[in-house]
Amino acid sequence: MDCESDTIDSPKPPGPGGDPIHEEGVRLDTKSLFRAILPELDALETFLNETLSDVDPGVKGVVSHLLGVGGKRIRPSLVFLAAKFGKAPHSDKILPVAAATELIHMATLVHDDVVDQALVRRGRLTVHTKWSRRVAVLAGDYLFAQAFRLLARTGDPRATDIMAKVVYDMCQGEIQESIVALEEGPVSEAVYLERIGKKTAIFLAESCRIGAIMADADERFVKALETFGWGLGLGFQIVDDMLDLTASSVSFGKALGADLRAGIMTLPLIHALAHSPDRLRLAALARQGARGEGDVAEVRGILGASGSFAYAEQKAKTFVADALEGIKGLPSCEAKEALTSMASFVMERQA
Amino acid sequence: MDCESDTIDSPKPPGPGGDPIHEEGVRLDTKSLFRAILPELDALETFLNETLSDVDPGVKGVVSHLLGVGGKRIRPSLVFLAAKFGKAPHSDKILPVAAATELIHMATLVHDDVVDQALVRRGRLTVHTKWSRRVAVLAGDYLFAQAFRLLARTGDPRATDIMAKVVYDMCQGEIQESIVALEEGPVSEAVYLERIGKKTAIFLAESCRIGAIMADADERFVKALETFGWGLGLGFQIVDDMLDLTASSVSFGKALGADLRAGIMTLPLIHALAHSPDRLRLAALARQGARGEGDVAEVRGILGASGSFAYAEQKAKTFVADALEGIKGLPSCEAKEALTSMASFVMERQA
Repeated sequence: MDCESDTIDSPKPPGPGGDPIHEEGVRLDTKSLFRAILPELDALETFLNETLSDVDPGVKGVVSHLLGVGGKRIRPSLVFLAAKFGKAPHSDKILPVAAATELIHMATLVHDDVVDQALVRRGRLTVHTKWSRRVAVLAGDYLFAQAFRLLARTGDPRATDIMAKVVYDMCQGEIQESIVALEEGPVSEAVYLERIGKKTAIFLAESCRIGAIMADADERFVKALETFGWGLGLGFQIVDDMLDLTASSVSFGKALGADLRAGIMTLPLIHALAHSPDRLRLAALARQGARGEGDVAEVRGILGASGSFAYAEQKAKTFVADALEGIKGLPSCEAKEALTSMASFVMERQA
Repeated sequence: MDCESDTIDSPKPPGPGGDPIHEEGVRLDTKSLFRAILPELDALETFLNETLSDVDPGVKGVVSHLLGVGGKRIRPSLVFLAAKFGKAPHSDKILPVAAATELIHMATLVHDDVVDQALVRRGRLTVHTKWSRRVAVLAGDYLFAQAFRLLARTGDPRATDIMAKVVYDMCQGEIQESIVALEEGPVSEAVYLERIGKKTAIFLAESCRIGAIMADADERFVKALETFGWGLGLGFQIVDDMLDLTASSVSFGKALGADLRAGIMTLPLIHALAHSPDRLRLAALARQGARGEGDVAEVRGILGASGSFAYAEQKAKTFVADALEGIKGLPSCEAKEALTSMASFVMERQA
């Protein structure tokens, strides 16, 4: 047992600092993440490489390319960290489940890129650019299949059930988003939040939950960790959506304004369409898909002037604060520190 | 127990007719199929409709469209028929597993259509034509996810494991095919057979196997049914590939020559490239992707003259004969008759 304990910390009253995310001294701290789960993250890379090496030579090139793209490994990190709060933190179910979350995430990225016709992902050519659309769609399917093989390997049908539901909800969220984009209907903040819940927050919440369950954690801990993942996911996606308009494309690794061009509504845009004095001009720009860089800059200017970025950032902060509130009762340990630093990371990332 | 029996039929010596597929009187007989599993096929339609109704209204339109496209339900039929040879032919694992095979098949069709840019499938607009490529890719992912939820519902990790491996192999087969097509290398018959094995035969073999296993069939029966599915799958795919060039597009429900244009090598083409006196002209036509209807007709003429269609048909017959050989030891019953009629159907289909 790493963090598992029969007693749980008594919740502390909120300090004078208020916002737990941007308190003095709370900064992005990958060290605390690595301190808590460095051996697990190492084992993950080895395991992913081994898992994906068992392929035909032709397919191997595609898979190596995908692994080389790298990533933040947020979902498997959540699985590993959540498992620390269980009675069986070293269960051999945890590594395949963590790897499965990353493979599912990779599959959705490959499919996103092919439908967005993105040329690059994290500075590397996308699969459909390097090979073909067919190869990209199939590579995504292949990654899904490999993920479910790993989940079956646990011998625990809950693993398949939880992750199949995650993919199911994600797809529903994204299909909804796409159909709304096609129909060009107005989108409310509530619809937006429901959508990013399905698209991102459920995946992060369930990564926490599955890690805790596979490690046989107490039901209270499972709930607390799920709450954390949910708030983290909402905050993460709001910030990610903002970066579509605010990041520098070099650090972001993909083209700016891609969501805007695809007709996908993000929170600052939804806010500005309701509150900006320039909302008619903004609606026209959004409708025509803001084709040039000048259009994107104009949209960014309108959203800045109406305080819409600040509004979205504040919303994200609130969700991340909820996430931290959710785990404040968990026993203090390195894993809890690492979860806290992931929350800070979400709010401070620029790309 | 429907067909399960401790004694198995002693194999009969081959009759004077030789080829068991085209013997007098053996014709496509959907009646025998329906006689054996009519209640199961009815239950399948209800179950698929219910399973796919549990979605957001926006997604429901896409799903209804997909269900409306229909299909031959070959894979679930194999699951149901194979289950008849088990000790628990009425296990409640069988229906969700049968439905999962159909959902996985539908997912692969939706993804095939989006990468082929096919306009119609069985006379209906494809998902990406009616909505968008994004919706089509996501709808395929959604179907995969729903399939794995059903497999998890059996509580039997073997179900997830078997079907995840099927998707895994199918994707590898198709990625291989696509990369070969991109590289324009020569394809041998052996490579072709390995590819259609992964792409189709494994799925049909495993549909038989999973049905038998979920119904707790004797290991000999599981093996016999798997052998049947494998031969049926190879025969089916060879015929299906031939139809790309020989079908009338109305009955085929998709554009003729699609594989040819995509650079995908089919068995008659591989044969003719090795044996036709016009092989240089044929290679040129294949390389440039036989763009017009005139090109497709010319390819068809060359393949006809070199006996390449006849060659491929003979190959298909041999595999289907192997399939029937595989199950000749199974006890006689309606399910066995139905399997035999499916074998005839494969060889006699024109579209």
